[in-house]
Amino acid sequence: MKIKFCTQCGSTTELKVPVDDNFERYVCTNCAHTHYLNPRIVCGCIVYKEDKVLLCKRAIKPRMGLWTVPAGFMENGETTRNAAARETQEEANINITTGKLFSISNLPHANQVYFLYLADLGDKSYSVTPESSEIALFSKDDIPWDEIAFHTVKSSLTKYFEGLEDNHESKKNFKLHEVDF
Amino acid sequence: MKIKFCTQCGSTTELKVPVDDNFERYVCTNCAHTHYLNPRIVCGCIVYKEDKVLLCKRAIKPRMGLWTVPAGFMENGETTRNAAARETQEEANINITTGKLFSISNLPHANQVYFLYLADLGDKSYSVTPESSEIALFSKDDIPWDEIAFHTVKSSLTKYFEGLEDNHESKKNFKLHEVDF
Repeated sequence: MKIKFCTQCGSTTELKVPVDDNFERYVCTNCAHTHYLNPRIVCGCIVYKEDKVLLCKRAIKPRMGLWTVPAGFMENGETTRNAAARETQEEANINITTGKLFSISNLPHANQVYFLYLADLGDKSYSVTPESSEIALFSKDDIPWDEIAFHTVKSSLTKYFEGLEDNHESKKNFKLHEVDF
Repeated sequence: MKIKFCTQCGSTTELKVPVDDNFERYVCTNCAHTHYLNPRIVCGCIVYKEDKVLLCKRAIKPRMGLWTVPAGFMENGETTRNAAARETQEEANINITTGKLFSISNLPHANQVYFLYLADLGDKSYSVTPESSEIALFSKDDIPWDEIAFHTVKSSLTKYFEGLEDNHESKKNFKLHEVDF
């Protein structure tokens, strides 16, 4: 995204490498304020119940109508775990407790880093929300694999089910998956 | 940081909760552009050589004159590993290869998430840079513990040396430390 105007004085900016810097930044032509753009963190949960995982059909852009795990942008003042739990509440109306950190995925082309935590649904209920038009539990074979909204989520779900099938990985003994896309 | 003026049209903003949102954002009073502020990622390396770790004395603000590991803000287009290696190059002039992810620290009060990777210095050289006025290898007992620039770095270094002393943790067998401050 372009920073056309200075956030501090409203003057126009120019794209240049500031003194003592190695990257191009939007710098104010009036007050010289430097604007930094940095990657954002997406946090969410692989909510499971026995051999099934919970997916939400997106009621919002982008990728409306496709399925994903509850996840979204981390906010200021949160921890990654807080953010994953909040997104699960907002998207699936579940008051979840996050478990083990399952995957960290780097998406440098999108300027994003994904954190996905495992979370046991247990006997908790879930329900549709303004962000999710449909919510359901899917076993591996029932997942609409061609209708998963995000490549990184599809990859993490694949690794999750591979882990379940691996005799060495119980749900409590998953190793952290680090993936660079 | 306040967003006083819109980045897209230069008009004044107001702080309010947009429709379909749960958080206060700076919203343009003219074009309604919404400005999001999100946590930033700091990436760096615990560079080790045998039983010592490499520390840099900061030549720049903040915490100028105090010691830290090479680390800094991740940039757009990078992976967390790329960022950790670049910062090590910029601050200590080492062309390092990152190893195992050692710690992820959440600092919600600072809106930051820290990634620290282990990295073996081997026979590589290091040298002072515009960002580091002094660079040295320290054993645990020689580290200037009261002059470490950042609390999260002190905590990770403490855990690193505890791990070394633990018979169950060799340098290649460190577990990931997840810490929320």
